[in-house]
Amino acid sequence: ASSSPLERRAAETLYLFDRREKESEPGERALQIGESADYSGFRARVCQTLGISPEEKFVITTTSRKEINCDNFDETVKDGVTLYLLRSVNQLLLSATKERIDFLPHYDTLVKSGMYEYYASEGQNPLPFALAELIDNSLSATSRNNGIRRIQIKLLFDEAQGKPAVAVIDNGRGMTSKQLNNWAVYRLSKFTRQGDFESDHSGYVRPVPVPRSLNSDISYFGVGGKQAVFFVGQSARMISKPADSHDVHELLLSKDDFEKKEKNKEAIYSGYIRNRKPSDSVHITNDDERFLHHLILEEKEKDSFTAVIITGVQPEHIQYLKNYFHLWTRQLAHIYHYYVHGPKGNEIHTSKEAGPFNNIDIEISVYEKGKAPKIVNLREIQDDMQTLYINTAADSFEFKAHVEGDGVVEGIIRYHPFLYDRETYPDDPCFPSKLKDEDDDDDGFIIEKAARGKRPIFECFWNGRLIPYTSVEDFDWCTPPKKRGLAPIECYNRISGALFTNDKFQVSTNKLTFMDLELKLKDKNTLFTRILNGQEQRMKIDREFALWLKDCHEKYDKQIKFTVFKGITTRPDL
Amino acid sequence: ASSSPLERRAAETLYLFDRREKESEPGERALQIGESADYSGFRARVCQTLGISPEEKFVITTTSRKEINCDNFDETVKDGVTLYLLRSVNQLLLSATKERIDFLPHYDTLVKSGMYEYYASEGQNPLPFALAELIDNSLSATSRNNGIRRIQIKLLFDEAQGKPAVAVIDNGRGMTSKQLNNWAVYRLSKFTRQGDFESDHSGYVRPVPVPRSLNSDISYFGVGGKQAVFFVGQSARMISKPADSHDVHELLLSKDDFEKKEKNKEAIYSGYIRNRKPSDSVHITNDDERFLHHLILEEKEKDSFTAVIITGVQPEHIQYLKNYFHLWTRQLAHIYHYYVHGPKGNEIHTSKEAGPFNNIDIEISVYEKGKAPKIVNLREIQDDMQTLYINTAADSFEFKAHVEGDGVVEGIIRYHPFLYDRETYPDDPCFPSKLKDEDDDDDGFIIEKAARGKRPIFECFWNGRLIPYTSVEDFDWCTPPKKRGLAPIECYNRISGALFTNDKFQVSTNKLTFMDLELKLKDKNTLFTRILNGQEQRMKIDREFALWLKDCHEKYDKQIKFTVFKGITTRPDL
Ligand SMILES: Nc1ncnc2c1ncn2[C@@H]1O[C@H](COP(=O)(O)OP(=O)(O)OP(=O)(O)O)[C@@H](O)[C@H]1O
Ligand SMILES: Nc1ncnc2c1ncn2[C@@H]1O[C@H](COP(=O)(O)OP(=O)(O)OP(=O)(O)O)[C@@H](O)[C@H]1O
Ligand SMILES: [Mg+2]
Ligand SMILES: [Mg+2]
Repeated sequence: ASSSPLERRAAETLYLFDRREKESEPGERALQIGESADYSGFRARVCQTLGISPEEKFVITTTSRKEINCDNFDETVKDGVTLYLLRSVNQLLLSATKERIDFLPHYDTLVKSGMYEYYASEGQNPLPFALAELIDNSLSATSRNNGIRRIQIKLLFDEAQGKPAVAVIDNGRGMTSKQLNNWAVYRLSKFTRQGDFESDHSGYVRPVPVPRSLNSDISYFGVGGKQAVFFVGQSARMISKPADSHDVHELLLSKDDFEKKEKNKEAIYSGYIRNRKPSDSVHITNDDERFLHHLILEEKEKDSFTAVIITGVQPEHIQYLKNYFHLWTRQLAHIYHYYVHGPKGNEIHTSKEAGPFNNIDIEISVYEKGKAPKIVNLREIQDDMQTLYINTAADSFEFKAHVEGDGVVEGIIRYHPFLYDRETYPDDPCFPSKLKDEDDDDDGFIIEKAARGKRPIFECFWNGRLIPYTSVEDFDWCTPPKKRGLAPIECYNRISGALFTNDKFQVSTNKLTFMDLELKLKDKNTLFTRILNGQEQRMKIDREFALWLKDCHEKYDKQIKFTVFKGITTRPDL
Repeated sequence: ASSSPLERRAAETLYLFDRREKESEPGERALQIGESADYSGFRARVCQTLGISPEEKFVITTTSRKEINCDNFDETVKDGVTLYLLRSVNQLLLSATKERIDFLPHYDTLVKSGMYEYYASEGQNPLPFALAELIDNSLSATSRNNGIRRIQIKLLFDEAQGKPAVAVIDNGRGMTSKQLNNWAVYRLSKFTRQGDFESDHSGYVRPVPVPRSLNSDISYFGVGGKQAVFFVGQSARMISKPADSHDVHELLLSKDDFEKKEKNKEAIYSGYIRNRKPSDSVHITNDDERFLHHLILEEKEKDSFTAVIITGVQPEHIQYLKNYFHLWTRQLAHIYHYYVHGPKGNEIHTSKEAGPFNNIDIEISVYEKGKAPKIVNLREIQDDMQTLYINTAADSFEFKAHVEGDGVVEGIIRYHPFLYDRETYPDDPCFPSKLKDEDDDDDGFIIEKAARGKRPIFECFWNGRLIPYTSVEDFDWCTPPKKRGLAPIECYNRISGALFTNDKFQVSTNKLTFMDLELKLKDKNTLFTRILNGQEQRMKIDREFALWLKDCHEKYDKQIKFTVFKGITTRPDL
């Protein structure tokens, strides 16, 4: 039975500490505001409850010693407030008081969770890294699929279909109501979630080790999906259905909804999940979202799926996604290179038959009014950095690093030879070498195009995906030696590499950097071993590597040698 | 009046959706569990309430279609649960249902807020950056002090005094109960806080622009202090008193306390503030924390203060703080260089009288059993990077960058000349140049010690403090030109610089990087102006800088020139 505002006000409770005398009762008294909800009525009740004569001089104050009176009673004496009963406002607090507080996290914990997380570095727009959080989740969700694992990123920028939206849709295992509820709980990770009652596992189980840690288990913190949606836009509609379920579950989190709840003094973290039959979109009435009708209609073709639909997309993101399609899809192809191509990467002569790694389809599509949709499968992209490294590599050196107390890092170094007149070490298509300049005239500085140049050797991958802002410059066993070594010094500039590890090494919450990978790798107790023909070998890595590099130089570098200039001959016969 | 468990159970409410028929009532029915809190009793009540014949066949299920029965009733039918009334378990959901959920953020939102934030980069231990969050807060709290602004970082590592603790204590304005309550609210920033009723300002006011943006207003997100305490340890005791208050306010946030509340099914985000008189430590009974008695005793000497006391300090942090005192205090001196020395920095001949910038004392002290305390004031440190740059600079070039639509970035470039036999560009004491090697023999590679080498030109400061992991390599007007310019190419290697901006440019939540400073500075609409004798000049910065660099070379570089070798003479007379 609902109560009137007056009844609710009368039922509000406050906590009064009597601190008039040293001998006063130390604990609090819980009092209700009562029916005459003004100062004089309240003061009378205090006298009555504590047996104080109405003539006695005393004050009632807040814990900041602000005296309560008729004028400020309503705004100061609120439900749950702690008050003092004192002889005077500035009386010394003879014994301590305990003041009840609530410190619910502000809803910006969700709404601003992504805003200042994905920063630009080295000229890269970080938007792909936010999208990567959603792809990570879809890889996890599809990890037990039989058949094709389909992940679609759809940019719905056709104004005829409503406001701009970004949708990430997978054919993974989907979420029950409970799991969708858990998705919304910030910082609830796979480690802290209790076993899902309806599912058949009761807690998190580590995946078995696989090459390059391509375990699809790329979740750790319980925040990534939320950070991503609130970096890209201001509202997320989650739609999901598990395989064995008849019902689709739908949950909306939006900045507007939080602001409305705050304004109406409603519970911020309460909401509801809509449960409905597949392909039922009667609840979509907003014309801005009419694209949802078509998306939802497709549901009946699917056993299980999850769709993350972001609206309120930041205008600068829309511009970037439209105008730099090539750039950011290539970034994604780089990040997920080994997921879409397998542990060996995008080798030129791989079989095109479906196999354990041809079964991950990450498909990006852009829909704009009056234009044909742009669609690309990440596997088709042939100029991401890892593909370029693999295509130009003449040979590779595989190794492992065993870090004391922690895990194992797999590594590979590739050799990019000098062929005739130029280095083959690939340029980053995002940053064409500044030194490729046509007008190097006599007065200019003649600068050799350095192969690797200032770039670090190693990119770093975590659970199979790129961690974009951590690189490892080199190790002491693959850095140019001070004295002349077995191979010429320029050979050290012809190597690139990659390091692969799992969550035995931590990454930062935004998955942009490792916490301390390089520090651990460079610890004096770290042991490096070479992997030759799949076998791990204990040997001195310095020597192994130096021999390999010399061998690469002798086998692969092709340089035209000029002998001493002897003079000019005239050939009148030609 | 408290109720018995049975009474509470009976009062629990569930929400039942009748979906047996298309014509069934679309909304939910709220039902109480009732007195016979088992399945058969419940089923009978459902029949009664909905007017269903007891012989009728129906099932009651969860929203995952799990059928309720006698065995699972207690664990499945909980307070607030949504249930379906269906003809059969697999019946199609003819119309949608709305399922109430709660999605309170997990308390790891606080407890793990710092754990994966402060990452290592370029070989630096990130612990100073976490401590910086607390110094930022103290700078803000002391920004309106008359007289000395005192910030003390005390490492209490004397086992005789209890378990290890890190305390950050300032003589700033302190916090009322309400403000201390607000401190605990994650993501409640100065922008979102309503005016504090007891204080005299109702909302956030931007500080007036000051040189180098040394505005002491280094808060933005409402998370820094929490992230810092939970990066360093597992418990934070906040003690604070405003100037005009008689009472000290104390609040404890700890991982253990959250875990206990969770176990006891108590409200996670409820707690209490202890209000007491200054220097009263009767509530400290744990022997592990006896160091608090002395700290608390000092309170009566203070008008206003805040103390942040972190316990449960991670062992690796204790080791680092003890063993690398020199390193991390130097890091802090670098971060706050311009706060402790003023906008011109640590120039050699500054007045030592108290002035607007000699009034910030950031004092670090380490207390260990059996050792004399190590105490250092950041102002005393003479080998932080900015001091080294300033001390070795022969000249400086000041400029501003006006970014379209945003703010202004102040900049300075310093020239470190070549003197006789060596570059004066300072080495980073953390990373001594690898090329300072004694055994450069004939077979070795003769590598010139590059001055700046591969290092970027510009460090970046935000609201006056260093943002450690963002650097700007160069601008096109101060990068070596392709053709020979006015100054020899090596002069470009003799410059260092710093950029200063305020929150018109965003930083990431952990304050380790700028979000997009370099992108904005390198935008084609960004306008650079030179500052000469304090006056801003519109000119072509390329030419101005090139002329300045040439001038520096001619005035300051001192090289011994060797003429052509003419032969060896024997001097038998010597
Ligand atoms: N596409 C999806 N399909 C199925 N479940 C999903 C999907 N996306 C998210 N979830 C569920 O929601 C949870 C929260 O996702 P979120 O990305 O916010 O955190 P996380 O993946 O657990 O950790 P991290 O912070 O490392 O990403 C996931 O753990 C997963 O259980
Ligand atoms: N030493 C202090 N003295 C007085 N008030 C403080 C102190 N430290 C923190 N506070 C108060 O607590 C609030 C929360 O601090 P916290 O560092 O967590 O977030 P913030 O400083 O607001 O923002 P940021 O995330 O950028 O640090 C501050 O805004 C300030 O009002
Ligand atoms: Mg995730
Ligand atoms: Mg702060």
